[in-house]
Amino acid sequence: MKCTLCSSPAVISLKRDGARLCQDHFISYFEAKVQETVLSGGMIEEKERIAVAVSGGKDSTALLFCLYRLLSGREVELVALTIDEGIAGYRDDTIQAAKAIARQLGVEQHVVSFREEYGSSLDRMVLGKRVAPCTYCGVFRKHALNRAARALGADKIATGHNLDDEAQTVMMNYLKGDLERLMRLRPQRVQKGLVPRIKPLRMMPEKEIALYCMLNGIFFQSRECPYASLSLRAEVRDMMNSLESQSPGTKLSLVEGFEKLALRTKGDWAQMDLAACRKCGEPCVEESCKACQLLEEIK
Amino acid sequence: MKCTLCSSPAVISLKRDGARLCQDHFISYFEAKVQETVLSGGMIEEKERIAVAVSGGKDSTALLFCLYRLLSGREVELVALTIDEGIAGYRDDTIQAAKAIARQLGVEQHVVSFREEYGSSLDRMVLGKRVAPCTYCGVFRKHALNRAARALGADKIATGHNLDDEAQTVMMNYLKGDLERLMRLRPQRVQKGLVPRIKPLRMMPEKEIALYCMLNGIFFQSRECPYASLSLRAEVRDMMNSLESQSPGTKLSLVEGFEKLALRTKGDWAQMDLAACRKCGEPCVEESCKACQLLEEIK
Repeated sequence: MKCTLCSSPAVISLKRDGARLCQDHFISYFEAKVQETVLSGGMIEEKERIAVAVSGGKDSTALLFCLYRLLSGREVELVALTIDEGIAGYRDDTIQAAKAIARQLGVEQHVVSFREEYGSSLDRMVLGKRVAPCTYCGVFRKHALNRAARALGADKIATGHNLDDEAQTVMMNYLKGDLERLMRLRPQRVQKGLVPRIKPLRMMPEKEIALYCMLNGIFFQSRECPYASLSLRAEVRDMMNSLESQSPGTKLSLVEGFEKLALRTKGDWAQMDLAACRKCGEPCVEESCKACQLLEEIK
Repeated sequence: MKCTLCSSPAVISLKRDGARLCQDHFISYFEAKVQETVLSGGMIEEKERIAVAVSGGKDSTALLFCLYRLLSGREVELVALTIDEGIAGYRDDTIQAAKAIARQLGVEQHVVSFREEYGSSLDRMVLGKRVAPCTYCGVFRKHALNRAARALGADKIATGHNLDDEAQTVMMNYLKGDLERLMRLRPQRVQKGLVPRIKPLRMMPEKEIALYCMLNGIFFQSRECPYASLSLRAEVRDMMNSLESQSPGTKLSLVEGFEKLALRTKGDWAQMDLAACRKCGEPCVEESCKACQLLEEIK
């Protein structure tokens, strides 16, 4: 099987449009697609400092590598930000991978741990608790990322969410009929204290990201978090994978359809004014932020 | 297990809110829910003549029975309209069931066949064709229903679509990102020659409809159409059933979420002006209607 654009051996057949691409053309295609997302969304501007959330998994590792390449020669500064939640038998290895890619590219890196920030690892927080670990992890990780990014003077936080993640999130909120959360997927109004988040890989399928890593010889950890279990998201992920294999392009049409719908929707969705948490000062909706509420519960 | 409202034995445990209901309370609950859909949607008004599309399957049979009960004492006239597509080994039995319920209730009934209307049964139309039978069937059935309902002087056509059908349709169009079709699920502007369609059972789960039939001793045909096969709809149906059993209420929250979203969406979706088909005079978007186009192809 040969590349549609040259005579080299193809490494992938893109299901969307049937094109077959060789190693070099796939890498160009991948980076052009990410560039398109970054440009069309006005995600990154000259002279900005971008905190890239790098966990050491394939998505965030590919993100740092790809942004580094796309932004070379531009006056944009990247800084890698890694959160150590404290998950035994999982996080230590991924942190090594995160350190490796930052070192390889010569990108400044900062590691922030739950233990230092909140006095306890995720493993200890959830010991004997009935609440899903992902609830704690999600709240504290976002809290820590925002705080650290702001401390580093970052203008944006870039995360490695891919097309599969986006499709799952859109689908979950469609299923729940949760319009508030659905609309939070859209670019948000700038709010004091909240570092805007961007997702440059949101239109890239997980499989293409994995291939991009492989072809570039990027080392990443493919281990799955031991807490990722039979959540609604897992069910929705399987469902979307099954639909995608039956009708290639479904994840993309779902996400693009949502975009079109959102653009035609009236109202100030999820655009409530944020206040500062009375305890930690982080932006929040209620009097104290979710992280401080959970910390109170844990005590 | 006893009824939540009285001491009689419960026949169903409603997953939505955990209530258990006995036979009588379930029937009252079911009819009140349908009444709510009919009233809140302004679906049926005094002095109207409603053509009820009755195939003889459980949904449309329950629909005729339920509307008959809800509208007794009101100045609304019901007429049963049955389409005989000509599907060997399937349609004959269902037509008997459709005739039985109309006879039982003393409702005037009309049977319209593809053979008389289009010169050929569905079985003959699709013989050796590569197009899915459901495409032909859907186009001709809608065409025949509209024509017959208008000829009968009907103000509305009521169909037996249930919550499962609605959830599948919403989901399919979310997946395809097809906003035009999505918005066609919303009440449409009145257009010349097009008899408005209403779906009084759209908020009722299929299982509750089956139980309503059983408890009322309504005879229906449970045979499945031999052409209903591995379509995207079948895949989506299985998926929605699996999600519903894991998280009861998912079908409802999906459909209600869509309603909320649609109400906040700007624009004249699917509200294009219709013209009359040059051949048959039925309302259509292009110069000739879909049914006349397919008839041309069949020749």
